[in-house]
Amino acid sequence: MSERASGFTLGEIVARFGGELVGDGSLRILQVSTLEQAGGDQITFLANPKYRKQLHTTRAAAVILHRTTAVDCQRPHIVCDNPYAYFARVAQLLNPARRPEAGVHPSAVVIASIPDSIHVGANAFIDAEVKIGAGVTVGPGCVIGRGARIGDGSLLHASVTVYPDCVIGRNAIVHSGAVIGADGFGIAREADGSWTKIPQIGRVVIGDDVEIGANTTIDRGALGDTVLEDGVKLDNQIQIGHNVRIGAHTAMAGCVGVAGSARIGRRCTVGGGAIILGHLDIADDVNISAATLVTKSITQPGTYTGAMPFEPHRDWMRNAARLRHLENMADRIQELEARLAQWEKRT
Amino acid sequence: MSERASGFTLGEIVARFGGELVGDGSLRILQVSTLEQAGGDQITFLANPKYRKQLHTTRAAAVILHRTTAVDCQRPHIVCDNPYAYFARVAQLLNPARRPEAGVHPSAVVIASIPDSIHVGANAFIDAEVKIGAGVTVGPGCVIGRGARIGDGSLLHASVTVYPDCVIGRNAIVHSGAVIGADGFGIAREADGSWTKIPQIGRVVIGDDVEIGANTTIDRGALGDTVLEDGVKLDNQIQIGHNVRIGAHTAMAGCVGVAGSARIGRRCTVGGGAIILGHLDIADDVNISAATLVTKSITQPGTYTGAMPFEPHRDWMRNAARLRHLENMADRIQELEARLAQWEKRT
Amino acid sequence: MSERASGFTLGEIVARFGGELVGDGSLRILQVSTLEQAGGDQITFLANPKYRKQLHTTRAAAVILHRTTAVDCQRPHIVCDNPYAYFARVAQLLNPARRPEAGVHPSAVVIASIPDSIHVGANAFIDAEVKIGAGVTVGPGCVIGRGARIGDGSLLHASVTVYPDCVIGRNAIVHSGAVIGADGFGIAREADGSWTKIPQIGRVVIGDDVEIGANTTIDRGALGDTVLEDGVKLDNQIQIGHNVRIGAHTAMAGCVGVAGSARIGRRCTVGGGAIILGHLDIADDVNISAATLVTKSITQPGTYTGAMPFEPHRDWMRNAARLRHLENMADRIQELEARLAQWEKRT
Repeated sequence: MSERASGFTLGEIVARFGGELVGDGSLRILQVSTLEQAGGDQITFLANPKYRKQLHTTRAAAVILHRTTAVDCQRPHIVCDNPYAYFARVAQLLNPARRPEAGVHPSAVVIASIPDSIHVGANAFIDAEVKIGAGVTVGPGCVIGRGARIGDGSLLHASVTVYPDCVIGRNAIVHSGAVIGADGFGIAREADGSWTKIPQIGRVVIGDDVEIGANTTIDRGALGDTVLEDGVKLDNQIQIGHNVRIGAHTAMAGCVGVAGSARIGRRCTVGGGAIILGHLDIADDVNISAATLVTKSITQPGTYTGAMPFEPHRDWMRNAARLRHLENMADRIQELEARLAQWEKRT
Repeated sequence: MSERASGFTLGEIVARFGGELVGDGSLRILQVSTLEQAGGDQITFLANPKYRKQLHTTRAAAVILHRTTAVDCQRPHIVCDNPYAYFARVAQLLNPARRPEAGVHPSAVVIASIPDSIHVGANAFIDAEVKIGAGVTVGPGCVIGRGARIGDGSLLHASVTVYPDCVIGRNAIVHSGAVIGADGFGIAREADGSWTKIPQIGRVVIGDDVEIGANTTIDRGALGDTVLEDGVKLDNQIQIGHNVRIGAHTAMAGCVGVAGSARIGRRCTVGGGAIILGHLDIADDVNISAATLVTKSITQPGTYTGAMPFEPHRDWMRNAARLRHLENMADRIQELEARLAQWEKRT
Repeated sequence: MSERASGFTLGEIVARFGGELVGDGSLRILQVSTLEQAGGDQITFLANPKYRKQLHTTRAAAVILHRTTAVDCQRPHIVCDNPYAYFARVAQLLNPARRPEAGVHPSAVVIASIPDSIHVGANAFIDAEVKIGAGVTVGPGCVIGRGARIGDGSLLHASVTVYPDCVIGRNAIVHSGAVIGADGFGIAREADGSWTKIPQIGRVVIGDDVEIGANTTIDRGALGDTVLEDGVKLDNQIQIGHNVRIGAHTAMAGCVGVAGSARIGRRCTVGGGAIILGHLDIADDVNISAATLVTKSITQPGTYTGAMPFEPHRDWMRNAARLRHLENMADRIQELEARLAQWEKRT
């Protein structure tokens, strides 16, 4: 599916990205693949030493790897410090993003004044006072609310919704169904149990080089703004509450929920399905495991986990019943210790 | 961002919402803010006594608070029973919802006959036999299925989908990407393991003053209806299964899932990421904590929790391994008790 | 809501679907209902013996049931092996899917060449090189990307997004807000903590008779394809990562997340809110309970569970505190056993 059928030679690749080439630099690479499936004009990588024995069986034209595994490799290879990142760059080189041509589809409704270099797909709607940078793509069916801003080079796939006044930086990628800037969940309880809505007058402000997955939602701030710093990467089906701040280069896997006013540091990772409660702080370089519930601030870098192990249902039934009586078990242990100590003392 | 730049005086606010004013009633308030960030023409509130020391440093024009914290406040203030709800009302007063002017955008497709007072945004579609009340806003890209009904004053943000025959009451707010009335998950297993679909012939029926968050989904009933009573508030990314009934003024935070035929009482709250299984009943005034799995009916008001605590990954690894052997630990405690009792008896 | 007001007689139903009729075959059935609510022209079913006493009070015209419960039934009934599946077939007979007439709405934008038998709703967009089979319905606001394929008879409800090159088989039902083929979450970390995107050049390939719920997302493969085999049924708000493979007739309830490269067997069921980690294998005929986190491969059929039981918050607080000290409890039990054994040896 590469747009450039002619590919690149190993020599050209190394000239561009560095690393040490072992083998014939004139070998032409057309596509990336896996160790297992690569064919004769494809390049692959080895990042996890667990798979090093596949080096003996792969039919790849070349392998990107680390010096510690290079000894096992009989095929042409590129030695580098970070094979997976190197592979990512080669994959981008061989698969440049396809962007539609500039122009506004006649079925689109564009109220704001926009530059000639942007593409607006069929049935998209861009409201008044929207500011869109050069080279932006607004996919079919997108809705960009009044006064929103989108930086140069950003790509909104089909059916993205951006509420009024929200800001997206440069080179963003936003996937279909994402909703940016809906009201945060701000409600105050009245004496009779009913709720009064608190107007959400803040914005969503997103930095540069951010990717937002399909059907992910990011709420606007209640008073101040909800902020995603540069380089944040969000997978699909994520919910970010109002006034959350996510530090630069933090990445979250699918189905994560972050409650209002949580402040998450830089370079964190959050596993799929984790829930982070509101009004807490997470330090830089923290990794939250999948399905973990974070109930309080984390001040030290490291990996944190809180998921229940799974087991055959029958075993779980027995153990789960015990789970409700840990307090009792602990008391009985303490009592046993006391009784035994008394005995030992006596003799 | 207020539409009314002139704001309201403290005197006007107290005349409208009650409470006891301490300070100059002619002071003009332009906007709401937080204790920490409020400037000289802004009003703020203190609901949680934990933050009372901020009363000494805030630069707010005035503070809404309870009589128990009023003693600490040197600035103009309004004393009332429920400062947070009072603040919400003031916030609404200063930030009236912006609604677009009545009229149908030329790109919208409207088959049904609708009143002049409604606004239909660009590229929206309203099918035949839809009934829409006065003053409704249907945002750009919305799709309203045949025979659906929407009550007076409701606001559908961009890209909301309402399936045929569903009913939304008055003054609803529905956020982008919400899907109301998709088929419930009704499938019957055949002997060969394949599934036969059960047609979902019920509706979704939503009361008045309901808010539904972005990308939330509410399935239509299998036979009867799925029902949300008046004043229910749902955050984003929530899934409500077929034939669920949610009592008046119940509120759910993001990422909650409610399985089919669950019946949830009035004035309940459900924390983010909680899962409520189907065919069970939850009483009025129950609070479910975040990330809790509800597996059986709850008959008494109160707070219920079931989440696994998180800890550094290494500690979790050790504890999680033990979790699988609680049965064994309990047996060993029992055996120790028996052996020790035998010893004590002997002497 | 049946389109056929005249219904079918019990005799016609048994002629069509088999089973043994006890009672008057000329009785006319207009609709399906529940044991509790069925009226005089409605048919119902009994699948769970727990509800058998309702056989005495139901006012249904007829009941579909198993021979083991037929003895309790005084009303006309149909005896069969699988009452729930039989009921599903009768429900389909009485409630044929309403499909709009063939034709392209003038507001739709269709670049590809499509057959006359398909319906394209208002403001839908079908890009170049799309191939659509006979009798397909593309709902209002759908976006079908370049080169995608959709098999005969499939139904896409409003506002479905299909990315370029993805493939959907025959007789699919896809609900609103579903996004098929967004980029998988493939990012490689650079030395400075930033991420480089890995182009996602695979597709989503979906078999026949698949149903996909509202706002569910299925990511395209990174290199190879993400595959859903025939008869897979996905509820709402599900996230399927890149390169996942789901075996035929596997069904997943709402809010499930499946991480990249997981391979799930045939005829599995996955309960609501479960999270399945990536790069693992699940055997055929495995049932995962709701809210369970699957962290490693499952090689044997059966039911697997890992959820934390819920309890009143105060009890949970005590037990949760103990949960963090299981290691310590286990050590103390071991020590007690050693000390007691020493005592017993001495005497």
